[in-house]
Formats: sequence, C-alpha cells, structure tokens
Amino acid sequence: MSSRTKPSGLTVAVLGADGYIGWPMAMHLSRQGHRVVAVDNLARRRWDREGGTYSLVPIATMARRVARWRQLTGREIIWRRADMRDFRAVDALMAEFRPQAVIHFAEQRSAPFSMIDRAHAVLTQENNVVGTLNLLFAIRDQVPDCHLIKLGTMGEYGTPNIDIEEGYLEIEHNGRRDRLPFPKVAGSFYHLSKVHDSNNIYFATRAWGVRATDLNQGVVYGVDTEDTVLHPELSTRFDFDSIWGTALNRFCAQAAVGEPLTVYGKGGQTRGFLDLRDTMACITLALHNPAERGECRVFNQFTEQFSVRELAALVAKVRESHGLKTEISHLPNPRVELEEHYYNAKHQHLLDLGLEPHYLADTLLESVIARVESLRDRVDRVLLEAPSVSWKRGGNEIWERYSGQGVSSDPVKGALAG
Amino acid sequence: MSSRTKPSGLTVAVLGADGYIGWPMAMHLSRQGHRVVAVDNLARRRWDREGGTYSLVPIATMARRVARWRQLTGREIIWRRADMRDFRAVDALMAEFRPQAVIHFAEQRSAPFSMIDRAHAVLTQENNVVGTLNLLFAIRDQVPDCHLIKLGTMGEYGTPNIDIEEGYLEIEHNGRRDRLPFPKVAGSFYHLSKVHDSNNIYFATRAWGVRATDLNQGVVYGVDTEDTVLHPELSTRFDFDSIWGTALNRFCAQAAVGEPLTVYGKGGQTRGFLDLRDTMACITLALHNPAERGECRVFNQFTEQFSVRELAALVAKVRESHGLKTEISHLPNPRVELEEHYYNAKHQHLLDLGLEPHYLADTLLESVIARVESLRDRVDRVLLEAPSVSWKRGGNEIWERYSGQGVSSDPVKGALAG
Repeated sequence: MSSRTKPSGLTVAVLGADGYIGWPMAMHLSRQGHRVVAVDNLARRRWDREGGTYSLVPIATMARRVARWRQLTGREIIWRRADMRDFRAVDALMAEFRPQAVIHFAEQRSAPFSMIDRAHAVLTQENNVVGTLNLLFAIRDQVPDCHLIKLGTMGEYGTPNIDIEEGYLEIEHNGRRDRLPFPKVAGSFYHLSKVHDSNNIYFATRAWGVRATDLNQGVVYGVDTEDTVLHPELSTRFDFDSIWGTALNRFCAQAAVGEPLTVYGKGGQTRGFLDLRDTMACITLALHNPAERGECRVFNQFTEQFSVRELAALVAKVRESHGLKTEISHLPNPRVELEEHYYNAKHQHLLDLGLEPHYLADTLLESVIARVESLRDRVDRVLLEAPSVSWKRGGNEIWERYSGQGVSSDPVKGALAG
Repeated sequence: MSSRTKPSGLTVAVLGADGYIGWPMAMHLSRQGHRVVAVDNLARRRWDREGGTYSLVPIATMARRVARWRQLTGREIIWRRADMRDFRAVDALMAEFRPQAVIHFAEQRSAPFSMIDRAHAVLTQENNVVGTLNLLFAIRDQVPDCHLIKLGTMGEYGTPNIDIEEGYLEIEHNGRRDRLPFPKVAGSFYHLSKVHDSNNIYFATRAWGVRATDLNQGVVYGVDTEDTVLHPELSTRFDFDSIWGTALNRFCAQAAVGEPLTVYGKGGQTRGFLDLRDTMACITLALHNPAERGECRVFNQFTEQFSVRELAALVAKVRESHGLKTEISHLPNPRVELEEHYYNAKHQHLLDLGLEPHYLADTLLESVIARVESLRDRVDRVLLEAPSVSWKRGGNEIWERYSGQGVSSDPVKGALAG
C-alpha cells in the first residue's frame, strides 16, 4: 500500500472494534502509530449466544486482545465498552478523546438476521439508524472537524441495469442536468438501514459541514492480516453459518467437511469482493486523505467482481489441484433477488488514492481453505445444513431452533446486558 | 371529484386520525359509506402541551368528534387509541378489522420539530420508521391483500435541477437504461424519515407483494371541508406557529393581528401546494383505484406550485382588496436550503384518475384569512415572534422557552402517557 500522505499520531475511534473487520482495523492503525480508541457493545457475541452461531476461528475477549497486543508490540489500544444507541456514552467518548477521525463499523451487518422477523428488522434499523444519528450529533457538538468514515455496503445499490457509479450520478433529463445521489434499490432491511444512514449522513454534511467518507464496501474475504497472525489471541472472527457467513466462507466450510457447496438459485448473483488486507488499506487511505468540511465522499470499496457460481467453481478448482473432488449443488434461493443480471460497478477512487489490490488468486483461497480445514472439527454440520432465512416468510423457525428464545425486545438494555 | 370506480362499504383504517388531515379524511370516507377505523396515539396533542403550541381553531376530543359525527349523520367512525410503535396493537388492529385499505398519516410531520435537537431527530425517525415497519409486517401477516396508502411528502425530492417525476426516473447511462427510484435529497430529519419509509415500503412490495401507494404530498392549506363545517366539534386543527404551521398559515395569522408577513431569506423557495379538499379527493381516488399486488405506485399529490414570496404577495393582495395594508419583511433563513432554484414537479397521475383541483384562488384564501381573523384573539403573538428552529444550531432554546421540559425520552411510554 502506498498513500500520498502518511500522518501518524492521529486519534482514531474505531466503533464496532470487536467485529470481523473492526478488530484487525484497530491493530492496523495502532501499528501505524495512531492512538486508537476501540469501542464496541459486544452485541455480536450476544447474538451468537442467542442464535447458536460462533466464530470458526476461536477469538479472545477484547480485554485479552488489547493486553496481548500491548505485550507483543508495546502499543496501547484503548478499549471502551459502549452502545451507540446510548447518546450520553457516544457524546462522552467524543468529548473525552476528541478523535480526528471516527471509523464506524458499529452496526448490525447481516441481511438474513434482519429478515428473520419483525423484531430483527426493527432492531437492525433502529440500531443502525439511531446509532449513526447519535454519532452525527456528537460530532457536530463535540468535534466538528472530525472525519467520519462510515462503512456502507455495495448492496445499497442493488443490481441496476446500468453501471454503478461511486455514490453520485450525473443525470440529464428533459434537457437539464444535475449530479444526484445514485438511485438505490436495496434488497433487505439490513441493506436498507445502510441506505437510510447514507441519506442521513449526506444531510449532515450539507447542513452542518460534517466531513464524511461513505464506503460502500463489497464482500470481504480472508482470515488474517499481518497483525492477526502474531498470536492466536489476536485472531479475528470467521463466520460460516447462514446468518453471519458469506457464501465464500460457507463454501470453504462445506469443502472442509466434504459437503457439496450450496449455491442459492442459478448463482448468477454478482457482487464486488475484496481481501481483508485491502479493507485495511482502503480505510487507511480514506483516513490519511480526509474529506473536506461539508463533503460527503462516496467510495465503492471492492477490487473484483464474482458471481456466486464463479466462487463455487474457484473453491472446487483449488481442491481439485490437491486431488479432491467437490460437488456443487443448487438450492432454491431463499432471497428475493435477480439470479442473472447486469453488474458493472465502478471502484476507481480508492485506486486513485493508491490502493494496490490483493486479488482472489488461488494462493489466498488456498490459505483460507487450509485454515478452515485445520479447524474442521469445530464445524457444526447442523449450521451448514440449516435452511437459510426466507426473504418471503422470514426465519422464525431457524432462529427458534437454535436459540430457544426470541431477540431481546428492548434494544439498548438487551445489548448492554450481553 | 369523479372517480372511475366508486366502491363503498370498504373497511378502511385511518392511522393518525386525530391530525389536521386525518380527522377530515375519516369523516370524508365515512360519508361515502366506508367503515372507518380511526386510530391515533394522540401524540400531536401531547407535543402541543409540551411545546406550548395549540390549534388556532379549537378542536374537540376524538370521543366527542365521533359522537357528534354519529349524532349528525347516523354514521359510525370506530375510534381506537393506539401507537404504531406498539406492534402488538398494530397487529391486533389488522387482525380484528381486516381492512381492505390503510391510510397511514401516523407520523411526526414537522421538519422544524425534527431539527430541534438530537432527541427530536431520533424521536422523529424512530417513530416514523418503526411505525411503518410494524405496519408492513402486520399487513404481510394479517391482511396481505390490503392496500397501503402512505403519506409521504414532496420534500423527499428536495430541489433538483431537473424535472421531478412521480417516484421513478427512466435513466440512460453509458448506453444502458433502467427505471429507478427518483434520486432524493431531503432537507431535514423529518423529510429523511419519509425517504426511509419510501425505501422500506418499496422493498416490501417487491419482497412480499404488498400493494402500496406512496403519496408525495405538497403543502396542504385550507381550514374546512364539507364535513368540518357541520359543527364546531367537527373542526380540524389549524397551526400557525413556527414548529407546526406552514408559511401560508403563518402569513394568515400575521396578517390577522397586523404584523408583517415574515419571509425566510429571499423567498424564492418553491413548493407544491394543494387544498385540503383536494387531499380528500386524491386519497379517495387512490383508495378507489388500488395498486396491484407487488406494486409500489408513487403519486405526486399537489395541484399548484408557488414560491414563499408569491404566497406572501397573494395574502397582501387579498387584504389590499379590503383596503388593508400588509407589510412583507425578510428574515434570515433558519433552514439550510436553496432560496432561488429550478422547480418543476410532475403531478399527472392523480389528474389521470379524475382529480378536479380547487386552485388557490382569492376566494379560498379570503375564506381562510376571514376564518383566522375571526379567531385573532386566540393568536399568541409570542408564537409568531418566536425565532424558528435553526437547521445549523437546532432550537433547544425555543423548545425550552415554551415547554420548560424536554421531550419524553422513552418514545412509546411518552406517547401513550399523553
């Protein structure tokens, strides 16, 4: 990675620092000499307990992670447990640490989770929208010059029949022109929550002069970064179940235990993807090249496009090179989505800032498959066999089967009680 | 009004039936022989008490209104107090009455209210988004064939430099075409809440086959319908303060007490407007010509465009014809918005269904001004003089000045306790 400017010693709040990307991000920034305040409400671990899911790679508590990081590197990551829906906590964090940048991962991030039932849909939108509103007000009032780096998703755009631009579109209509937000057709209550956030953030940049970078991220793959490999207690999570795992992770887990790879529908569903290490690089580039006051900058953060069918074929090919045979089977698609469609999404802005992508070559995929195979005894086949949440009927049945309880009805209390 | 079809005897739930439009709508549908279930949480009356605002036209309680309506017309409007954020209540209402249509006004509907401070912004988005999500799930599960008629606002679109179409835009880009949602740039947390709703509703039509009509309504003016004039207890509210009143209402109240009409900024801000009686007709047309299963139909519901400056001049002209002199003064604009801009919004769909508009001719304006003048002793000049909520700094000061208390922190409890 090369960036035009390489400041260090910034104070950066990483919100959602207990997550798959949040934890390696906190270490990555700490390694570069930034003062990192890692914040999380630990909701993700609670949802695992409630739903019977777990990270295939064992993960340590936040307290052990930051202690191990300090012991190995001499660097301190400041760890604070807080819920973004608790405005007093968010406001107090901004006032205490006065970060130059906030990297905001602190959202419910699973589409199937948001489609389980009404309670999960409401929890997702309330958690994500209210948390982000609280953050916007805290930035306005405490640290107006702070750069908000917000994780959105490529899924906000849906699958339009035109090229997907980065956030905005020049439109000519009846002889007049304007540059307007790219029209979005999101495909789940989760994806919609990110669209709501994007609209709220864009407004805050115009009304209050907030600096914002909205990163529409593709599907992230990979298990390790240069920091996670230092010690098992520095590992980040790896999800393979149908609620939290991506299709690629599911394929790796299925291959590891000798099950057929399950493609939903025709498998022509095409999305943008990127390596976990490139996520580190992209966000660092955004941090080191901040948005202007009042600017709402949108980057499409991915490096390659694949269809689900192509991913399954890639996994099968890697295994075949080791003499292993892998079956691919097609299941009825639980989601409401196009299974064959045009897809061409631009992703130039981060390349212009200096991103040097790692592509999903056989080597990376081999290392993920090898890592998953080393953990095959931890794969609960019941989670692999579980039907996924239906977009039409929801997934009460699945949730009840594994959890034996509903989701907490009071979002703030529920999250803090975890 | 003429409509292609004139069914009667439909069961129609009017949500937000205690509001300015909701109450006359309930009577209008009842008069036409529909079975009307009027639902409200009475939050609007509580916010009046909290904020020191009130309806210039005295209004009766819902109980007195429906009793008077029954006594005068022999028709029954079923009145139920319920909060849309209480899913069990919403679900039970749908199960009990099994409406063929739901007309959904049950939202916090003031832009300045949503900009007072963080608590009001969060209350607005939580109330509106969660209430609408609850309704969508209740429709899916209890009455999947029910037609959702949802009140949105023309303010969702903002002021783009291109013609505003009705909900969707045919876009040609890099040689490919698609019909996509019209890109929206909403100008307050309230307007954004309606954009969030529109996106959620569009998804529910695609995923679940819900029938929906999303009405992007302009600014409504007028005090009376053929039903409100039957008895003082059947009146609907008229707001003139800076939180709940429209600019036109403020001008009428200012004129009545001999104050200058206060135009914010240059006054070139242009919006769509319609007569309260046309709102009755538009919604009835939507009801009698329902959307198909899975269709998310968007109508722009207004009949004329005016700039704020033009409205002030119209009020001054009417008074001049009675020999009264009216001053117009320009105040600094508390909002962040363009004060001179292109504005050309389409509104053909409702005309195609048979809408015959009442235009804002001098006669209507005269009758509103006359009605306000008859109530001039009820105009609290402090409310007219109050600075409006600043889009940049909020309006804590205003709220605290009149209320002496903050907004309730628990939305559901707060609303039910009102």
